[in-house]
Amino acid sequence: MKFRTEHDTMGDVQVPAEKFWGAQTERSRNNFKIGPEASMPHEIIEAFAILKKAAAFANCELGVLSEEKRDMIANVCDEILEGKLNDQFPLVIWQTGSGTQSNMNVNEVISNKAHVNNGGVLGEKSIIHPNDDVNKSQSSNDTFPTAMHIAAYKKVVEHTLPAVKKLRDTLHAKSEEFKNIVKIGRTHLMDATPLTLGQEFSGYVAQLDYAMKAITNTLDHLQEIALGGTAVGTGLNTPKDYDVTVAKYISEFTDLPFVTAPNKFEALAAHDAIVESHGALKQLAVSLYKIAQDIRLLASGPRCGIGEILIPENEPGSSIMPGKVNPTQNEAMTMVCAQVLGNDTTISFAGTQGNYELNVFKPVMAYNFLQSAQLLGDACISFNDHCAVGIEPNLSRIKELVDQSLMLVTALNPHIGYENAAKIAKAAHKNGTTLKQEAVNLGLLTAEQFDEWVKPEDMV
Amino acid sequence: MKFRTEHDTMGDVQVPAEKFWGAQTERSRNNFKIGPEASMPHEIIEAFAILKKAAAFANCELGVLSEEKRDMIANVCDEILEGKLNDQFPLVIWQTGSGTQSNMNVNEVISNKAHVNNGGVLGEKSIIHPNDDVNKSQSSNDTFPTAMHIAAYKKVVEHTLPAVKKLRDTLHAKSEEFKNIVKIGRTHLMDATPLTLGQEFSGYVAQLDYAMKAITNTLDHLQEIALGGTAVGTGLNTPKDYDVTVAKYISEFTDLPFVTAPNKFEALAAHDAIVESHGALKQLAVSLYKIAQDIRLLASGPRCGIGEILIPENEPGSSIMPGKVNPTQNEAMTMVCAQVLGNDTTISFAGTQGNYELNVFKPVMAYNFLQSAQLLGDACISFNDHCAVGIEPNLSRIKELVDQSLMLVTALNPHIGYENAAKIAKAAHKNGTTLKQEAVNLGLLTAEQFDEWVKPEDMV
Amino acid sequence: MKFRTEHDTMGDVQVPAEKFWGAQTERSRNNFKIGPEASMPHEIIEAFAILKKAAAFANCELGVLSEEKRDMIANVCDEILEGKLNDQFPLVIWQTGSGTQSNMNVNEVISNKAHVNNGGVLGEKSIIHPNDDVNKSQSSNDTFPTAMHIAAYKKVVEHTLPAVKKLRDTLHAKSEEFKNIVKIGRTHLMDATPLTLGQEFSGYVAQLDYAMKAITNTLDHLQEIALGGTAVGTGLNTPKDYDVTVAKYISEFTDLPFVTAPNKFEALAAHDAIVESHGALKQLAVSLYKIAQDIRLLASGPRCGIGEILIPENEPGSSIMPGKVNPTQNEAMTMVCAQVLGNDTTISFAGTQGNYELNVFKPVMAYNFLQSAQLLGDACISFNDHCAVGIEPNLSRIKELVDQSLMLVTALNPHIGYENAAKIAKAAHKNGTTLKQEAVNLGLLTAEQFDEWVKPEDMV
Amino acid sequence: MKFRTEHDTMGDVQVPAEKFWGAQTERSRNNFKIGPEASMPHEIIEAFAILKKAAAFANCELGVLSEEKRDMIANVCDEILEGKLNDQFPLVIWQTGSGTQSNMNVNEVISNKAHVNNGGVLGEKSIIHPNDDVNKSQSSNDTFPTAMHIAAYKKVVEHTLPAVKKLRDTLHAKSEEFKNIVKIGRTHLMDATPLTLGQEFSGYVAQLDYAMKAITNTLDHLQEIALGGTAVGTGLNTPKDYDVTVAKYISEFTDLPFVTAPNKFEALAAHDAIVESHGALKQLAVSLYKIAQDIRLLASGPRCGIGEILIPENEPGSSIMPGKVNPTQNEAMTMVCAQVLGNDTTISFAGTQGNYELNVFKPVMAYNFLQSAQLLGDACISFNDHCAVGIEPNLSRIKELVDQSLMLVTALNPHIGYENAAKIAKAAHKNGTTLKQEAVNLGLLTAEQFDEWVKPEDMV
Repeated sequence: MKFRTEHDTMGDVQVPAEKFWGAQTERSRNNFKIGPEASMPHEIIEAFAILKKAAAFANCELGVLSEEKRDMIANVCDEILEGKLNDQFPLVIWQTGSGTQSNMNVNEVISNKAHVNNGGVLGEKSIIHPNDDVNKSQSSNDTFPTAMHIAAYKKVVEHTLPAVKKLRDTLHAKSEEFKNIVKIGRTHLMDATPLTLGQEFSGYVAQLDYAMKAITNTLDHLQEIALGGTAVGTGLNTPKDYDVTVAKYISEFTDLPFVTAPNKFEALAAHDAIVESHGALKQLAVSLYKIAQDIRLLASGPRCGIGEILIPENEPGSSIMPGKVNPTQNEAMTMVCAQVLGNDTTISFAGTQGNYELNVFKPVMAYNFLQSAQLLGDACISFNDHCAVGIEPNLSRIKELVDQSLMLVTALNPHIGYENAAKIAKAAHKNGTTLKQEAVNLGLLTAEQFDEWVKPEDMV
Repeated sequence: MKFRTEHDTMGDVQVPAEKFWGAQTERSRNNFKIGPEASMPHEIIEAFAILKKAAAFANCELGVLSEEKRDMIANVCDEILEGKLNDQFPLVIWQTGSGTQSNMNVNEVISNKAHVNNGGVLGEKSIIHPNDDVNKSQSSNDTFPTAMHIAAYKKVVEHTLPAVKKLRDTLHAKSEEFKNIVKIGRTHLMDATPLTLGQEFSGYVAQLDYAMKAITNTLDHLQEIALGGTAVGTGLNTPKDYDVTVAKYISEFTDLPFVTAPNKFEALAAHDAIVESHGALKQLAVSLYKIAQDIRLLASGPRCGIGEILIPENEPGSSIMPGKVNPTQNEAMTMVCAQVLGNDTTISFAGTQGNYELNVFKPVMAYNFLQSAQLLGDACISFNDHCAVGIEPNLSRIKELVDQSLMLVTALNPHIGYENAAKIAKAAHKNGTTLKQEAVNLGLLTAEQFDEWVKPEDMV
Repeated sequence: MKFRTEHDTMGDVQVPAEKFWGAQTERSRNNFKIGPEASMPHEIIEAFAILKKAAAFANCELGVLSEEKRDMIANVCDEILEGKLNDQFPLVIWQTGSGTQSNMNVNEVISNKAHVNNGGVLGEKSIIHPNDDVNKSQSSNDTFPTAMHIAAYKKVVEHTLPAVKKLRDTLHAKSEEFKNIVKIGRTHLMDATPLTLGQEFSGYVAQLDYAMKAITNTLDHLQEIALGGTAVGTGLNTPKDYDVTVAKYISEFTDLPFVTAPNKFEALAAHDAIVESHGALKQLAVSLYKIAQDIRLLASGPRCGIGEILIPENEPGSSIMPGKVNPTQNEAMTMVCAQVLGNDTTISFAGTQGNYELNVFKPVMAYNFLQSAQLLGDACISFNDHCAVGIEPNLSRIKELVDQSLMLVTALNPHIGYENAAKIAKAAHKNGTTLKQEAVNLGLLTAEQFDEWVKPEDMV
Repeated sequence: MKFRTEHDTMGDVQVPAEKFWGAQTERSRNNFKIGPEASMPHEIIEAFAILKKAAAFANCELGVLSEEKRDMIANVCDEILEGKLNDQFPLVIWQTGSGTQSNMNVNEVISNKAHVNNGGVLGEKSIIHPNDDVNKSQSSNDTFPTAMHIAAYKKVVEHTLPAVKKLRDTLHAKSEEFKNIVKIGRTHLMDATPLTLGQEFSGYVAQLDYAMKAITNTLDHLQEIALGGTAVGTGLNTPKDYDVTVAKYISEFTDLPFVTAPNKFEALAAHDAIVESHGALKQLAVSLYKIAQDIRLLASGPRCGIGEILIPENEPGSSIMPGKVNPTQNEAMTMVCAQVLGNDTTISFAGTQGNYELNVFKPVMAYNFLQSAQLLGDACISFNDHCAVGIEPNLSRIKELVDQSLMLVTALNPHIGYENAAKIAKAAHKNGTTLKQEAVNLGLLTAEQFDEWVKPEDMV
């Protein structure tokens, strides 16, 4: 590999000759060989491109950057957003906790690429300085949290929420479709009074509605951005009105309602907005777990389980058991939920560990948040398309089970009291008989009364 | 001990003669000797008293319970709320996951106490039946989650939130008081550019404001109650309009905006509202941890630490080191936060584990929620009263540190560029000199320029 | 209430007149009103009594305490251990993170009670000084972690492990008893090849064997005690050989193999032994969850679930559904497991947060550890006595299910290949027929071959 | 892209023409678009190659597979291990929870590649059947857990433990090097009695020694492999002695002490070994957090922090503050620890969720375990090489702080008692004077006595 010499305030560094990054990126690349290469989420890099462009426009509007430099910077940002420079961001999550070198990676790539775009040669001193121009009116300490919020907000509103909505709508349609199918209820895994399959599914719909609302409730906080706080929140070295101006450009470039954070000290030193929104994603995981678990229990069998519903058969289920089919989408979903619960532990822990003017767990928080939001969205779509849309009731099985249940006896409480009703249920359970037989045997009511009072379809 | 014989649908049970509870309570007491006795939170018992009274009123209003029985039930509920029957609820958290026996404990105590209040003798068949009267139009499956929501909501709005507000207001007053005290900032635990002590504290205030808003955002969900769903959510054995009627009475008796849950299936089978609100309490714990940790770091010393602030001296700090004083309120607070993070793991886990029509992790969820809400509130008050109100700046120490900091060099960036500024800082660091000395030595600016450009008070 | 005046190095304090505690205890009691009173675990107080007595004996043996004072101290320690002074320890978990005031609470009670025992009057200056005599050669920083290890070790070896062993032995007996009962296996909740019920239970036994071994593996670390490190680990103000001498007495008084920690700096500043042992308790919780969950799934029904086993009917299961019986012991067990998982989060978090020479999360770590160890032990005994011992197979149901399973087809793989076997299973599934019918229909083997090759009892 | 037609028991599938995988892999690839492609850890694929080769050898030795087929299978396994087929494993973590399609992916690639190696054409029916030959005597249910154990064990013993040992040895050398440097101790972040810097570091060494021992304690369980259990643990369709034979070959091929699991039911239905070993990795994370946190606190400054040690300056620390250097390795380490704590939550949760004969959270458990083991090892090496080896004491700062500390007064306890000593410390603190001045002022001892009794070097 060929190298060229780059320098920073610590001295010279050899950098791969054809790469646009500079000295600081290379130092970090060499100093942090932790986990797979280039693990810093690409969503963070894209968010940096947005905010660097916005900063250039704000700096220009406020008179501290020339239009020429603004455009040179903005053009490289666009190249990043178009995916043309994907191999220029080699750094890992497990670097400095402020993400300083990822900020510098972006600064260096913009500086060098702009120079080349302008006809310069890579390795020369660029006409755009990575700190004095690209990073003007900025610090890693306010850019990285801004990138976190841009990336997190976009992922949630553009991916996670629509995916949940899609699944929610499918389940709602199923709930409507199944609204007249009377089935046995189960509490404590034990037979209980009946309900309709549609009612059962309506609970899932309600869970997802609450989860979407809970996520949405957190977005106000997440849309606030730290930019303008610079090093410690005071906004040192920024022109007047910079914070609102740069937020305006970010909002314009993303078409999303980002605003400047009213308190920059909080925005650098704490990442409670990430904790808050991920808490809501975790709630979504809790909801999805219950739904996916229920559906696989209901579909269990085919002959030795519950078997009240049928789910699509997507792959041969076993490498040894011929003909076996498994609830694989449910399993993927529940594994994703388990991951999200762990990610929440990581994010909460990291959230507690800010000190003074900075929280230095930014990359690990961003990584876990984006993973959760991506996986939950992907899993909802996958579960929707390959499982939920194909759910069908197993009507004969549903009827068989509801007809033989003992808990229909509950309908007799208002007529003969809880204790008499219990006698009937216990006798039928003990003798393997029907409720009606025992009701009459025990002389507590007539067969006609039984037929009139115990109607599963009236109990739902 | 003397005993009397009680019975339920399973047969006879010997119960302590003087206790009002009955057969089912006694069975549970004997079958679940797990952890300390009577650990079911008293807030749950009180919430049950509220909802049993409300149910009696609703049943009466809707024509299925006599006014006489209504009043007999309501009177015992009032006795419970007045704390007169505290020794009548011996059951533990670690019982059935639906809390059925705690519901029956309340039913039995109301039944027997009403009978005695009416001149009856304990042990006779009560004129008020625990199931057919006290539990009328109810199931454990809808009463226990209702009790959870009543207890959780009351604790949060009556205890936690006011306590956080109290601490927030103290920190806000400190922030105002300290607004002109210029101090060194610290990022990565390393010296950074200055800010005011008031600005530093304003970040804490912002964190608590966000936390209170996040908690409040979840209350809509928490104020929904399951009552009216009975066994599986269908509302079997309830009169028409029962759910809204009973919610109206609960709201009236508590003076809190409880409403009936629009989907009872979700309300029994999932406890996402508890997950949601506790997620916000966990966010509060994350915020409080950062605040308490910062304050003890700032107060560390007295001679070998940071020492920028002074906190009240409340107890001798050491049994061996004479004269030692420690940040004990901060330690209590951070321990509480650690507890709340663990409680969130428990609650989230439990929240995933509903099956079909019921989640059977109700008591453990209630216990952890109420513990978190209580401890956070208590800790905020304790931290406020014994630490926050007494925080004073150590002005001489603050000035000493800010004056010698190298990061004031940042103010020179706009004048001489990042790289030249770095040269000055590095030289001063290496030589143990001042920035001004090195700035002049390196010929990058004059002493007069330095004095004009580097003013900590202008950097905040 | 009447008060007397006590003093410490900070001045005078009013203390309830009849209580033996002194000024520092009272300060802490007033300064930390967080959660219920007197929440510091009694096991910690007892461990303190053991170690204070051991310290007195060691100090005496090493010539720095008189025999008279040794005996006066030891006598009060014995009174504490006999439970005579239970109302003298009012402090809470949520105090200073070193537990200093709980150490002083014990020192003060011993000092004052010894004085009274010696004929003195409460409120006079005691002949035994709480710091100079009772706390001689000690610091809170080494006594509290010593108390944590004594309490944790005792709880695990005297309660948790025997309880797990009891349940393990019951499950082992069931496994032997059920060794010839052929049943359907289930993977992915779906029907799979058969095994015996005894084999299924043998997996549970293996899990508990591994869990007990894992816990035992951690005891070496837990039996090391910090005493002798005093304030920061250096052993300042202790006589020569004090650490091994005091460990010898603790070992003698408890009849347990406690030894002095080889590195006292680790023993004060980190509590990795607590993290380690609780990690193993958490593993036990993971195992117990699987077991309890399986057993309730197997027992689900009675008519609309799996129903392969019968578990004892302990309480009426429902306040509304007459005759319902639920797997309540399983629910208590799984709730306990959920708690232990959360406790592990708290303990791990707290374990990371030591700084310099001290970890100040000692009380919260002790509380969570002891709760987990107690609850796991209690739940194992409860589950054993009220569920496991009474488990019975439902032979007719087991036979019914295994006979109709499609996965018996797996036995044909070696004879006709995986793909042909799959054809048979799929045809039977589609047509609602038996494997044998379809095998013959498809011409892949004869009825005789089928009977010879497909024998569930040979497949286990 | 060109495609060819492959089929499985469900029918035909279009597969990219040049890929060796078959129908089932392609189905899974299409059905599970969750997260980044090909996310199944490559260590799992390699472990599969080892076990497939071992199975072929065992099947051959036991007479159920020809030598020719054995060698054809083994040759492709070797190609996988040499990294020649890295682009043939496109599946994701978030698939079926048994990893069935990843098992089939390996089976299919081996089958097709062997056919091509033998001169066949891709797309023809292979002379090696993926199920009947490659998967002979196996099920996904026993191969995937075997792959998990092989991959996890190898990663821990070949990567994590040596990396921890490297860091431990560096810290031990530092501890020896610093053994005579007397410094102030700190408890509660407050000044305490002195110790040596070497003693402080010895605590870190002890923590890592305990962590390595704890990890090692879990390896017995982890080295047990499930192979031979097949579908549900009974070993259906395996020849006699297969389980021990295949374990022998795996042990031989890896040169690691793998053995067959004594209870196959546990090995399929639970993954407590993964829970157990990851619990020990989590303990390591707890230890490393404390160490990394301490070192950055000790190195904080340079002028406004503690500053007792100097750590290497590796990168410019700030994009805005010139000359700033940060403890970046410590930050990477603490972020890794935060990740591992979250991974432990995920693994524990997943560990609880086995049902009946199978735990279907295998891929998520494998992924989190391998990530933790990799990151911890990488971070130890990075922290060692770029931080620990370069730690130097700041002798002048250390001396300055210890000389002015008030807690040296503790040395006077045995001479003048705790209360008098406290008076001296409090007076010096209040007056800003020295202990010696106040000791003489208060008339409690002479200057000569003070000099004789208070020697920091004698207090360590």
